[in-house]
Amino acid sequence: MIIVMKSGAGKKEKDEVLKRIRELGYNPHVIHGTTRDVIGAIGDERGKLALQEIESMKGVESVVPILQPYKLASKEVMKDSSLVKISDTVTIGGSKIIIMAGPCSVESEKQIIESAEAVKSAGGDILRGGAFKPRTSPYSFQGLEEGGLKLLAKARDLTGLPIVTEVINPETAELVAGYADILQIGARNSQNFALLKKVGQLKKPVLLKRGMAMTIQELLMSAEYILAEGNQSVILCERGIRTFETATRNTLDLSAIPVLRSKTHLPIVIDPSHATGNHHYVSPMSLAAVAAGADGLIIEVHPDPEHASSDGPQSLKPAKFALLMEKMRRVAEAVDRTI
Amino acid sequence: MIIVMKSGAGKKEKDEVLKRIRELGYNPHVIHGTTRDVIGAIGDERGKLALQEIESMKGVESVVPILQPYKLASKEVMKDSSLVKISDTVTIGGSKIIIMAGPCSVESEKQIIESAEAVKSAGGDILRGGAFKPRTSPYSFQGLEEGGLKLLAKARDLTGLPIVTEVINPETAELVAGYADILQIGARNSQNFALLKKVGQLKKPVLLKRGMAMTIQELLMSAEYILAEGNQSVILCERGIRTFETATRNTLDLSAIPVLRSKTHLPIVIDPSHATGNHHYVSPMSLAAVAAGADGLIIEVHPDPEHASSDGPQSLKPAKFALLMEKMRRVAEAVDRTI
Amino acid sequence: MIIVMKSGAGKKEKDEVLKRIRELGYNPHVIHGTTRDVIGAIGDERGKLALQEIESMKGVESVVPILQPYKLASKEVMKDSSLVKISDTVTIGGSKIIIMAGPCSVESEKQIIESAEAVKSAGGDILRGGAFKPRTSPYSFQGLEEGGLKLLAKARDLTGLPIVTEVINPETAELVAGYADILQIGARNSQNFALLKKVGQLKKPVLLKRGMAMTIQELLMSAEYILAEGNQSVILCERGIRTFETATRNTLDLSAIPVLRSKTHLPIVIDPSHATGNHHYVSPMSLAAVAAGADGLIIEVHPDPEHASSDGPQSLKPAKFALLMEKMRRVAEAVDRTI
Amino acid sequence: MIIVMKSGAGKKEKDEVLKRIRELGYNPHVIHGTTRDVIGAIGDERGKLALQEIESMKGVESVVPILQPYKLASKEVMKDSSLVKISDTVTIGGSKIIIMAGPCSVESEKQIIESAEAVKSAGGDILRGGAFKPRTSPYSFQGLEEGGLKLLAKARDLTGLPIVTEVINPETAELVAGYADILQIGARNSQNFALLKKVGQLKKPVLLKRGMAMTIQELLMSAEYILAEGNQSVILCERGIRTFETATRNTLDLSAIPVLRSKTHLPIVIDPSHATGNHHYVSPMSLAAVAAGADGLIIEVHPDPEHASSDGPQSLKPAKFALLMEKMRRVAEAVDRTI
Repeated sequence: MIIVMKSGAGKKEKDEVLKRIRELGYNPHVIHGTTRDVIGAIGDERGKLALQEIESMKGVESVVPILQPYKLASKEVMKDSSLVKISDTVTIGGSKIIIMAGPCSVESEKQIIESAEAVKSAGGDILRGGAFKPRTSPYSFQGLEEGGLKLLAKARDLTGLPIVTEVINPETAELVAGYADILQIGARNSQNFALLKKVGQLKKPVLLKRGMAMTIQELLMSAEYILAEGNQSVILCERGIRTFETATRNTLDLSAIPVLRSKTHLPIVIDPSHATGNHHYVSPMSLAAVAAGADGLIIEVHPDPEHASSDGPQSLKPAKFALLMEKMRRVAEAVDRTI
Repeated sequence: MIIVMKSGAGKKEKDEVLKRIRELGYNPHVIHGTTRDVIGAIGDERGKLALQEIESMKGVESVVPILQPYKLASKEVMKDSSLVKISDTVTIGGSKIIIMAGPCSVESEKQIIESAEAVKSAGGDILRGGAFKPRTSPYSFQGLEEGGLKLLAKARDLTGLPIVTEVINPETAELVAGYADILQIGARNSQNFALLKKVGQLKKPVLLKRGMAMTIQELLMSAEYILAEGNQSVILCERGIRTFETATRNTLDLSAIPVLRSKTHLPIVIDPSHATGNHHYVSPMSLAAVAAGADGLIIEVHPDPEHASSDGPQSLKPAKFALLMEKMRRVAEAVDRTI
Repeated sequence: MIIVMKSGAGKKEKDEVLKRIRELGYNPHVIHGTTRDVIGAIGDERGKLALQEIESMKGVESVVPILQPYKLASKEVMKDSSLVKISDTVTIGGSKIIIMAGPCSVESEKQIIESAEAVKSAGGDILRGGAFKPRTSPYSFQGLEEGGLKLLAKARDLTGLPIVTEVINPETAELVAGYADILQIGARNSQNFALLKKVGQLKKPVLLKRGMAMTIQELLMSAEYILAEGNQSVILCERGIRTFETATRNTLDLSAIPVLRSKTHLPIVIDPSHATGNHHYVSPMSLAAVAAGADGLIIEVHPDPEHASSDGPQSLKPAKFALLMEKMRRVAEAVDRTI
Repeated sequence: MIIVMKSGAGKKEKDEVLKRIRELGYNPHVIHGTTRDVIGAIGDERGKLALQEIESMKGVESVVPILQPYKLASKEVMKDSSLVKISDTVTIGGSKIIIMAGPCSVESEKQIIESAEAVKSAGGDILRGGAFKPRTSPYSFQGLEEGGLKLLAKARDLTGLPIVTEVINPETAELVAGYADILQIGARNSQNFALLKKVGQLKKPVLLKRGMAMTIQELLMSAEYILAEGNQSVILCERGIRTFETATRNTLDLSAIPVLRSKTHLPIVIDPSHATGNHHYVSPMSLAAVAAGADGLIIEVHPDPEHASSDGPQSLKPAKFALLMEKMRRVAEAVDRTI
């Protein structure tokens, strides 16, 4: 960590800072500049965020961290990409790009079974579907809850597809884990630390969505919460960030793929449906995600989007999804991967 | 709700839309424009967000809602400002501006008692202090938990100041409610709907912070979750939104005060400490909040910011806080209010 | 345009609004809703933004425009994609994806000739290079000005590559047009309307970059300024928007490609270099742009990035660029296009 | 400047960096950390942005600047606040807060004279009014141009109020300077460096608006362009930044006041009208700006907002403006200033 002193800082102020740096277990090293002094604090600064407190001290202009604040999520811990095993046949993080698809919400047996069959026949790997739904409005459909989980399990039995579904509350996390193959943490819960700790204690892979206003560093810190509890099966998901642009529901930040690739070993999944909010934009963004190096995609597919109880405007119909699968396969091949 | 048809939409597509509008319980009304048709769907659209699904239909360009999606939080339900009673002597929402102050985290008995006495002697109304801390890093100090709540209660006993403290998990919400006078929902949990429902069922006032990327409308929807569970004592808190500017921790959106005033009857509190992240900027922003019409402020005060275990850089020392109280009193008087 | 009246608006207020709508040349049409009235104003609202002024009237809650405010840039004017001819052999907007590449700034004869030869030998179509540089700091290198234009012309003579270079001032626009094949309007000048009008009067294709905080609609309005002056050869360029994320210089908004495709006939070019600001991220984002349907890319290539006078960190070396060209060709083929 | 090396960087890479630092005229100083080396480059880094190019070198993780990149705008150059003299009786930057007011556009003699008289009689100091208008749409009213300047001059003759008006093009800058007392640079031209240089060469005070996506540091760099050309009379103006929130036209960043105060000696003016875009929000934000320490305000006032040719929704009527002046006077007094 680098402490930049103010240009007029006196000896007394500097001595106080040096003393505090030593108290915190670091070794200080002063550089005398032309207009001000800069102090390097040598030592592993992770897990010692208290060093930031030096910013409150007299004569200090700013404190610049050098190390990233995460450890277990970092590439320094593990150079190769993590492989997260979902089932005997499905693993995320290798050269095969994994496609998760299905409706936003589980609505009925007919709807989820039809969806699962459409996903399966088009070559998808995992079925998605929400049973507990975090909705902006208390008056919107909140999901079928355990009934929905049972329908998902039934769809899995019929098709063999593993299932990913959202967990929204520490109190019902174990219930969901009893059914799901992957526990999804939604964007609005991406810094719900009580929930992150809870899923860190469960033995199921976690799909962690990036929050709408979350930096990539904060996403890795949220992953660190799960990893630090002992659960090593974390999959990161970019699903659009909030910006000033209103032509799309959110702004899909595909550059998160190479940025994350340079910082972490965890697999990276893209959600083009929530990012764009418009089924017309899902196909081009899916192809772009494949070309940019995503390890997986999660796409909304619904047999009857016009009567969907949530997110109809961004869902693909089965035929359009099957066509997209074909196109994605071609792009995957062009970047030496498979789907 | 207004449905805008595409310029080339045919009769069949329009008939399908009209049919669906009627199925949803609305009365459609067509306006034939020069280049396209526009359909008004007459009826109370709140609680029927399914109408948005019409956006998926063929021939539809966009759907424009007319009514705000919240009811109980809206000024249409209650023209006058709500008064939220905290204790026999403290009520928020009237002409007296309520000052909440104290440290970010409860760290020790000495620290919280000293803080409480400083707040009390400067004329503050409510003591703030975190016992359960939502921290970005799993390696940061996570709070004293129930031990912290007990220290807060002790500080209340000594000074008579009611206490506001954060609740971060439905599982511990009742525990916190057993000690606190106001339950705080932090910015990162502002769309943790499981937690919002839980505090909606408790009988304690709630201070609901705006999320970092939350629109004012979404803030009112989160308030609606609490109100809809039967808890009418909701206080809204603006604490800075995330923008591209990095000179401050967040960007304090003071215009939220008049915007909220025009839309809701709920009291409005400003948090200049988390918004700016820098104690030098807290005083001018506090004065601005008073001038702009805030019903309360929540300010970080710490007897020894340089050794604080969280948020030291943005905390005021007691003497500076006392001076700020004097200044705020003068500005409050200039806008015909008191502190 | 739709005028939403306040729920308590009286007859007198409504009559005033109806009168004003007629004065402005529209035909009003009232829908009586359950809680408020909504008035449709029928007529072509483009070119009559004064209608927005109705928002100031008593009893009016909001005014919702129905038509897009641009005409010439719109798909309604021209269904097919525009083809912009640059030279006898280079046209943008067809199935061949056009690659523009070269250094940020022209620095010397050696540098620009080496760059041009590298672009040419890797199969690039157009040479980029700045002679007039808009720099954030007055102390940064401001470009070689006319000397730079002459070097660009020399590079064109040697390689046959057309050149694209920036114009930053109406006073020097004609000078630049005397050398350039494409006039570039940079992100910081994207709403410099005096400059837009000027290049609209010149007979050279224009590459219009999206501003850092510009919505897609505003980008099309800036294109409209150029088109309205009689210059039909406008190419749009997405180069990253400003968001809260700091891991990349800007956030590349690739979803702008399908959004623009649905709204305009103008060709769309992506600039992955300025968007990411980091040469490590340029290749994956270039492949993604091709997959998402871009009509062209503009990529920074420099023979010696470590000694570049601007934007070294985001420039590719010639060998890396040649490799990227190979990869892009494969992805282009997978989406039925060529490079 | 601090250069952070990658954790695996070798001796050869480090030696190259040390060599390049010396070539650039700095004195390198190495700190050996526990996981990586950090190199301080000692010397005045302003005006030598080439140091950033070190980021392109092998083995370098990041480069952290220590000094601010502006000089003349900085507090280090001048500790006290600048006083910018506008006329014999009006100076900005002292304890008297200067109020500029008037319509968005000059529309007619009657309109501008009525506006000027309203501003004068309420106690305003300076008349604002646009003659050259930068409008998002080419079809919107573009201003009366020189005719408008003549009307402004007439209003000044009648009332004695100095005038502030916008300059949008280097080609007409001298024409505008022939009439105006203050040259305004609008938000969309805040990084139009050709225009900044031009007004830097003229001998008139400049009101420089912050761009919609401009950081405070960039605003100071744009001021530096004007100062570096020899014009020391620069006034900064915050007028709202673009964020995700749509309830207001922009988000007024009042914390820019204390941030700028800590970094620069230049006077600071707030524009609550363009920031909020809604006349209902102008009064509370004006009072907040006074309380936060603004040196001036610029407020839209129009005798007949409902028929204004631009920005009617955000303009105050004369009576409301006079009332606001009274309220601002009281708040100014409460913070020991006058209006």
